[in-house]
Order: sequence, then structure tokens, then C-alpha cells
Amino acid sequence: MKIGILCTGDEILTGKTVNTNYSHIAARLVELGFDVHWGATVGDDRRSLLQAMKLASSSSDVVIVNGGLGPTLDDLTQEMAAHTAGVGFVLHREWLERIERWYRARGRGMPDNNRKQALLPEGSELIDNPIGTACGFALDIGSARFFFTPGVPGELFRMLDEQIIPRLQAMRGGSLLTRVKRFHSFGIGESRADGMLAEAARMAARSDVRLGFQSHYPQLETKLAVRSESGPDAETILGPIENEVRARLGNFIVCEDNDTIEGGICRMLQESGECVSVVEMHTAGRINGRLLCAAGHPEVVRTGMASMAVEEILGFFDLPSPDMASPADAGRIASRACERNASTHGLAVLTEPYADEAGGRGIDVHIGISGNGAVVRRRSRLPGRPDWTRIGAVELGLDCLRRFLSGLPVDERIDFEQH
Amino acid sequence: MKIGILCTGDEILTGKTVNTNYSHIAARLVELGFDVHWGATVGDDRRSLLQAMKLASSSSDVVIVNGGLGPTLDDLTQEMAAHTAGVGFVLHREWLERIERWYRARGRGMPDNNRKQALLPEGSELIDNPIGTACGFALDIGSARFFFTPGVPGELFRMLDEQIIPRLQAMRGGSLLTRVKRFHSFGIGESRADGMLAEAARMAARSDVRLGFQSHYPQLETKLAVRSESGPDAETILGPIENEVRARLGNFIVCEDNDTIEGGICRMLQESGECVSVVEMHTAGRINGRLLCAAGHPEVVRTGMASMAVEEILGFFDLPSPDMASPADAGRIASRACERNASTHGLAVLTEPYADEAGGRGIDVHIGISGNGAVVRRRSRLPGRPDWTRIGAVELGLDCLRRFLSGLPVDERIDFEQH
Repeated sequence: MKIGILCTGDEILTGKTVNTNYSHIAARLVELGFDVHWGATVGDDRRSLLQAMKLASSSSDVVIVNGGLGPTLDDLTQEMAAHTAGVGFVLHREWLERIERWYRARGRGMPDNNRKQALLPEGSELIDNPIGTACGFALDIGSARFFFTPGVPGELFRMLDEQIIPRLQAMRGGSLLTRVKRFHSFGIGESRADGMLAEAARMAARSDVRLGFQSHYPQLETKLAVRSESGPDAETILGPIENEVRARLGNFIVCEDNDTIEGGICRMLQESGECVSVVEMHTAGRINGRLLCAAGHPEVVRTGMASMAVEEILGFFDLPSPDMASPADAGRIASRACERNASTHGLAVLTEPYADEAGGRGIDVHIGISGNGAVVRRRSRLPGRPDWTRIGAVELGLDCLRRFLSGLPVDERIDFEQH
Repeated sequence: MKIGILCTGDEILTGKTVNTNYSHIAARLVELGFDVHWGATVGDDRRSLLQAMKLASSSSDVVIVNGGLGPTLDDLTQEMAAHTAGVGFVLHREWLERIERWYRARGRGMPDNNRKQALLPEGSELIDNPIGTACGFALDIGSARFFFTPGVPGELFRMLDEQIIPRLQAMRGGSLLTRVKRFHSFGIGESRADGMLAEAARMAARSDVRLGFQSHYPQLETKLAVRSESGPDAETILGPIENEVRARLGNFIVCEDNDTIEGGICRMLQESGECVSVVEMHTAGRINGRLLCAAGHPEVVRTGMASMAVEEILGFFDLPSPDMASPADAGRIASRACERNASTHGLAVLTEPYADEAGGRGIDVHIGISGNGAVVRRRSRLPGRPDWTRIGAVELGLDCLRRFLSGLPVDERIDFEQH
């Protein structure tokens, strides 16, 4: 079953808006084992839409069309869908009432031009949009099944997951379900992970599970995807392979599925009634920023400091300036941040730029963590340009804190540091 | 001259990578007045590439192809370009020597498979890539001129600007140049800006200048594009219209062209030997983070603090807790941050969430700025969800600091606040 994706709209065509809807649709479908074979983008004009839909109907079994379902004059998708299919329009009374209710609930009358959103090509199947006024619809054009979706990302994402993917799965063959398990790791490159997971790959191949990697520095995503008749089946098939992946990647797994490293840290702190103070350099305050955004309960993240000069940090904590920026200082600063903020844990990430004889450049990172009466330290040399090492230092700081809170070794070597 | 853009590669097709190369190419070309009429994406397979190139050659005058010029087996673009054009290959000796030199300069021998990168379809024009081993090339297929470009963004961007756009401008007609002027403003929505710039629009229409907006909350971009025979001509035409835009948008213009609001702030501080300390709430430390990233000289941005609780901030500065989070406190905190950090300027952005009777939610923002013996305050109510108001609070804080440093009124109403 070959799937094409057709994105419409001048904003996308002209590059004003980066087409994240396309990548979302494609990634979701590919993850579930569907064959996405091309994508196309056209603007809000009748001729391009007609040509693109004709072409799509002759080269794909399924076409997902995104955008152009709004109430304004330049929203041409319904019109051109009917035109391409050679059918007229039907007013969908139930959907019209839904739009009218939607406006009433907001204390307003429905503007006349929204009526257009309930005019569907004859023979269409309505596809529900529980959160907007643009319904989706499905329609056969030539030998292809077209699914028309709204351009608003939130509406598209729900419609895709709740309405369209189940229909595609039904078209593909009975009740086959696809389940995807994701592991996010930090510190291992794709080629090393590939070697570490040789046995998991063999197990996956035997069970018809797809094992794949997606590297987005500084994290690596390891994915397992399985198709089965029922949810419990999928769990049974995946269970042993998941365990093998967990055993091999071990301490390097920072979170699973939709979780984040900072979300996990905040949860651990919250559950044990603890909290953390962060002092950081060269990271533009992003360690604290990620924790602040992830903290459901504000009390787990105390006031954090971001600085470019270790002397200023030492001054803030009334610490003497000599021996500055040594690993020992990172530990002392972490402890002092705890005291000043009355927090149970402190994290200090201090950095110094270096340039070696061979022309290599980067930063030396000194990490100190204090908590539960203990102070641990970690030193790391990250080579690369400042924007690159910044990303690495942020992730390394968060990972050391995660390891400390989980009782794992903080000083385990990672692939991105210079040994 | 109709231009199509064809992006190749499994990473893009399957949504693993968001296709920012497409939006970059399209936006650059549209900005210069070219007519981009469709985009397409196909994977690394021969049949799709052949079909896509055939289709492109029959529907466009110019086709920009991106990706697939690398040395590995799945890089098929050269092969399929030659196949679609019905020509053979020629070894481009000069380019082969360039690749060999490139490897020698890095102390390595050229791997055999890189030789492939110097094999070009017969009749191609080589397009220089000064920073990589994949050269571009231009080739006529059918009645269309194809430009083949590498997928590495940095290489693509340079090749597009330095090599391809001049060729397209020559194809379009003699030596016509396009110059684009950009204004970035904060605090004015697109519809209000449209009204304010009525006279500028009339002047633009008379001079054949295109005036357009691009809204990316919280900033609005106003663009002027003009085509002329020479650079000085363009300046002469644009000059009076630029002045009219500056006069109307006035204080709301935060920067121009490729500058940023934080870049401007750091420059002003640097030039007058001043520096700033930032204390912020609800912003995940992003005000300080943006300043830290923009600061060419580290001494202009002193240690900043990001917090979720005003009591903690007051405690840090040994200020009494009552009357907390009032606009007055923001001023006192800004002054105290100056003293503690020995900085010339202090910026405090304090926030409190609110929920009104009508079910509206958002944050009240209290801003205090101290510097040169003065303290100014600004209060603002920003409605919306937390992630939305966070973006607004960051920009408002930076904008108030910009206004203070520029001697502009800090308390000018913006469209995004509730009155």
C-alpha cells in the first residue's frame, strides 16, 4: 500500500513556514510500518491542486492531503477535491450544526463563510475533528483513497492518530496493530549501540520486530516496532527484546517513550520530597531552563544561576577565588548552592575553554553534585565548536544529575568526550 | 520562470529529518521575486528519482534538486540525472584533484568511493562547492534547467547564494538584482502594522517595491523587496520607503535585517562599557540565555538568576518578603542585582499567574530596570497558556531593556497585552 503526502498552502510552498506537518505525518506512518513513497507541496491555486491530486491518484494507493480546509477564499481543497473526483457537493447538516454549536459555546454567531466547511464532495466519508471547525473527509479519486486533513497541527495530529491510522490499518489487513517502543540514550554513538545490540537485533529478526536507530545529537533513539493482532500479543513479543535492550544499553538509557531526561529528574525529586539548585556556565542557563519547564511542581527546582565567569559565581557564594574552576570547586559550589537555596541537591556545571597543540578546541567541563550528605565530581573534555559543546554540556549535566539521583555511577565514559 | 524544488533522501521522505533545506531554498527564492510553484520529496530509490525528475522537467523551467550527491551507494542523484537526461558520465579531473587535495589537507588519502563525486553527467556545468567534496552541477533535462545541490545545509546555503541565484538572475533578465530590506518589530500585530504602513504601501506600489509581512509571534517581520539594475539603484529606490517604515513603526522596531534584539542590547552595553544582570521568573532563564549567546564579550552579561518563586529571589538579595511581586519589587530587585553583581544595569522580570471571572488565564508581568541612577517599572497582563505567555514575557523583558538603553519610553502599549 503506497502512501503519498500532499501538503497545500502558500505559507508552506514559499518556505515561510517550515513543513513540520509533513515530517509528523511521514514519521508516524513509517514508524507504524507504512510505505510513504513521496511527498509534494503546492500552493493555494486551483491548477496546481488539480494537477497534484491527479498525479497522486495515479501513483499512490492512499493520499494524505494536508491544509486548505478553512473558511476563507484561499482554502480551495474541498472544491478541488470534488472537481478532481468529478462530483458535486453535499451539505453535511450534522457538521454544520457542530460548527454553529462551536460558535454558540464561544458566545458568537457563526460567520457566513464557515458554512463552506460543511460542504463536502459527494460520496465523502466525514472524518471527525473534535477540536476545530474544519472536519476531515475521505474520498476515492481514481483508484486511490484520499484523506483530507486540516493544517492546524493539533487538529491534524489527533485526526491522524484517532481517525486515519485506524482506517489505514484496517485497509492494510484486518486488525493488525503496530506497537512502537522507544529508548532514549545519552553517551553512546549509533555505531557502538549497533554493536552492543547485536543479540537484540537477532532476537528482533526472529520475531519480525524492526529494530532501528535515530540519532539526534546528543541523544540516540533506539526503536522497536512490531505488528500483531492484539495489544497483549505485541507486549509478549516485545518483552524479551525490550529487556535485552535495557540490559545492554543499561545506565546509558536516560528515558523511554515520550518521557524526557529532565521529566524523570523532576519526578524523582518530587517523589522523595527533594529539590535541586543549579549553577551553570557556558550553557546559557539551559539545564535550569529544561528543569523549570519540566517541573510540574515548582518547589522541586530552586533558583538557578547562569554565568560566564567563575569568579562571579564564587563571589555570589562568598567563596575564595583561587583554585578556580577546578573539579573541586564544582563540588564546593554545588554544596554552597544547596545551603543558600535550602535545597536538598545542588548541581554545578563549570566550564573552561581549551585549545590543544594539534589545533583542537573545545571545553573542559567540571561537574559537581551534592545531595544526601555526599558530594560527587566528574570531569570531561568535550571537543568542538561552542554551540556544539554547549549542547553536550547541558546534556552531560542533566545526565550526571539523573545518574546521581538513580544511584548509578556518575563517572561512566561517554563517546562524545575526549579520553 | 517557474521553479520547482525536488528534495531527495530517505531521512527527509520518512520524516526523520524536518525539511528545513526546502524552506530555506523556497524562502530565499521567493524573497528575490522568483516564482516557486511546487516542491516534491522522494527517497533514495531509482524509480522515484526518475519519475520525479521527468515530471519536474515537463512542468518547470528551473528545478533545484537537493541531496544525494555524496560518495555512498545510496547517493543516486548523479546517476539518475544522467539517466533521465539520456547522457553518459564524464570524469571531471579538476574536481577529482580538488577532492584529493581536500583529503590530503586533512592528512588522509581519498577513499576510492569519493571518486564517484567527480563523475558528472555529460554536458553538465560544474557548480563550485568551496567547503565540501560534493560539487554541484547544472544540466538541461528536457526544456528545464536543473541545478543539483548537496544536502549538507551549510554547503547548500553558500552554493545557492553564491552560485545558483546569480545564474537564475542572469536567466531572468540581464543583470537585475534584488535587494531585500527587513524590519523586525515587537508589540504590533500584522493587521495594525498593515494600517500603519498605508502610505509606505502606496510609495512601494509606485516604485514597484514589494511590501510584505511575516508574522512569527512574538515578532513581526516587515519586508521590502526591490529589483533593479544595480545596488546603488536599489538603495535610491528603497531609501524613502525605508524611512517611511521606520517613521511609522518607530519605537516598535527592535532590529533590522539579520540583527537580533539581544544582539543590539549587547552591542549597546559593550560600546558604553556597561553590563547587565538579569533576574527572571516564568521564562526558564531565556532572557539571560539569549543575552549570553549573543554576547561577543562575556563581560557585558553578568551572572543571571532564574526562579519560580519570588520569595527565593528576595531571600537571595536579603530583601524582606512582604509586598512581594509588586512592580515596586521588580525595581528593587533590579537595583539589588546590580549591586550584588557590580553591574551597571539590572533587569528583573517577575510574574504572577492570574485567572479572571470570565475564565481567562495568563500572567501579570512586573518589570523593573535600573541603570545610570534611574529605576523604571512596567506592568503588563499577558493572556494565554503558560508556554505562550513565556514567549511573550521573554520578548517583553528584552524589549524593555532595549528601550531603556536606547532612551525610548519603556511603558508603550503593545497589542499582545490585555488593557
